[in-house]
Amino acid sequence: MAPSFVRARLREMAGYTPGEQPLAEERVVKLNTNENPFPPSDRVMQAIANIDRESLRRYPNPTADAFRAAAAKMLGLTPEMFLAGNGSDDILTIATRTFIPPGGTLAAPDPTYSLYPVLANLQDAEFVSVPWGEDWSLPTEALLATKADAIYLANPNAPSGTFVSPTRVAELAREFDGALLIDEAYVDFAEDDCLSLLRDHPNVMISRTLSKAYCLAGLRFGYAVAQPQVIHELMKAKDSYNCDAISIAAATAAISDQPYYKEKWEYVKQERQRLSVELMQMGWTVLPSQANFILASVPDGRGREAYLGLKRQGILVRYFDLPGLTDKLRITVGQNHQNNALLAGIKALTETPVAA
Amino acid sequence: MAPSFVRARLREMAGYTPGEQPLAEERVVKLNTNENPFPPSDRVMQAIANIDRESLRRYPNPTADAFRAAAAKMLGLTPEMFLAGNGSDDILTIATRTFIPPGGTLAAPDPTYSLYPVLANLQDAEFVSVPWGEDWSLPTEALLATKADAIYLANPNAPSGTFVSPTRVAELAREFDGALLIDEAYVDFAEDDCLSLLRDHPNVMISRTLSKAYCLAGLRFGYAVAQPQVIHELMKAKDSYNCDAISIAAATAAISDQPYYKEKWEYVKQERQRLSVELMQMGWTVLPSQANFILASVPDGRGREAYLGLKRQGILVRYFDLPGLTDKLRITVGQNHQNNALLAGIKALTETPVAA
Repeated sequence: MAPSFVRARLREMAGYTPGEQPLAEERVVKLNTNENPFPPSDRVMQAIANIDRESLRRYPNPTADAFRAAAAKMLGLTPEMFLAGNGSDDILTIATRTFIPPGGTLAAPDPTYSLYPVLANLQDAEFVSVPWGEDWSLPTEALLATKADAIYLANPNAPSGTFVSPTRVAELAREFDGALLIDEAYVDFAEDDCLSLLRDHPNVMISRTLSKAYCLAGLRFGYAVAQPQVIHELMKAKDSYNCDAISIAAATAAISDQPYYKEKWEYVKQERQRLSVELMQMGWTVLPSQANFILASVPDGRGREAYLGLKRQGILVRYFDLPGLTDKLRITVGQNHQNNALLAGIKALTETPVAA
Repeated sequence: MAPSFVRARLREMAGYTPGEQPLAEERVVKLNTNENPFPPSDRVMQAIANIDRESLRRYPNPTADAFRAAAAKMLGLTPEMFLAGNGSDDILTIATRTFIPPGGTLAAPDPTYSLYPVLANLQDAEFVSVPWGEDWSLPTEALLATKADAIYLANPNAPSGTFVSPTRVAELAREFDGALLIDEAYVDFAEDDCLSLLRDHPNVMISRTLSKAYCLAGLRFGYAVAQPQVIHELMKAKDSYNCDAISIAAATAAISDQPYYKEKWEYVKQERQRLSVELMQMGWTVLPSQANFILASVPDGRGREAYLGLKRQGILVRYFDLPGLTDKLRITVGQNHQNNALLAGIKALTETPVAA
């Protein structure tokens, strides 16, 4: 039983479940957690190697100004429009504590990133799940009807990979009185983004991460983009020194190394297209994805069996035991040889069906 | 004016003020933020140099198990009694969200670490400041009378450097129904600690940091020690991946390198004693400190003038414009030559008084 001196809301929460632990790396094709299949760039590794003892001994710059300047330059905005965080999970936590009072409401089109309801719960707020419209379209009216304090929109969405056009998002931003957080964790694999909304919609905030697009999931670095007066408020809710000296240097190097990363994004997008086509030729239904993963329906509708059958072959993909998702697998787009291993694994499934 | 979509409590909070920016390092004797005057050890730098691209590409271990194992070994406890955090500020944030409900109360003997009221405010809770007893003794009865959800006790305390004996703390833990967090950020410079309380007092949690004792303020790494069922609850309130792969490796190396660090702590303690004695010989009153800083009263009672006079000489110390502290300076213990520079600077102050 949980100790009495722990507050009730926490006691009632389920414990944190870490993600699936892979077997030894060499034996596994790991396509289950949406990491980039390529390593971080030489400039990132050089920035880490150049860290000196003095910058570790002393407190880091509290607002990661080197990164803010580099990100502003890259996106053609001002540094005052940026907030750096210890991964975009930190950004999402900061946003939740800034926009949603205890007893308030967070709404999101659902299914989506499973962290959102956890963040609402931690804040003693209510999470209102609003079903996506037909073909994963934005349920604008239903979202507005929640009268939530904030709406979180993953765009591209996970686990669907689908994308809502900035025009549709702008309509929601205009009609909504609360804060609209657009979670662009996967945006570098998409054809468009919502940065243009920031100018006319002060209630819009965008969160991004270096985990996927910049091959740095292990570094923990994310950032927010919003109008300066919103960034000013978000700053109040962050830990004083939420980013360390090494990650600031590495993230600054990463975001300044666009040519390396753009090439990787193009590769992933091409492989995403190839993988989607090949799966469809095998009878799978594949949602059009603008992320570095695809959500695909198993022909016989038995998602769990396909997931387990692939796992037995040393191929890890993601299965969600949730309404509307039990016939589907979420597959991270890997390098060519990994995707080929997946396709071969799926073929093997069909040829020798695995007992349920 | 703050945007309307920001929650009221945040709007009313003051913005974050980053610490004093030093001039160029070579021109300043920086004794104002309690960093360790020595660099991190070779083993720490080696651990950072050994980080490979693959451990950055992938998500880190969510619970920093390598560090937990090393810390458990060092302290003779089990890994299940540890929680790792992105600096001890992260640990304090996690604790606040675990123990104190919105509308609840956090109490602390005061003056103390100025972050505590900020954490209470962010949690929509009340901070109750309880004046220290005579000679900075623990005001046990007054603390119990607050009926707080949690009591935070910095021990050694900042900015006083004073230490409450584990026997006195145990009395408070026994009488108190809520959570008692003992913030041992400076404990490696003290003669004792409160680890022994964990066995008999399940409501006690200890937080520590590698910022000061392990010369790693720039790395952001702290940890909590408590009974496993308390750690289990704290885990629910942390970000999923709150520590990055590099800091986990560096922190594990640091805590495994006790001989290097113990020598530095002994050095600091000896210099603390020397500095205290020399200041007293110059007419200053110095509180007995068990931290890596001292709180010293200026003979003429004019703390601000002394602070400014030293700053003009390129010597940074900390001045608090708070009741009971305006006649005092908090001085970080530096290396021998830095402490000598401070003593010379103070001597110069007395010889040529600075206009107020």
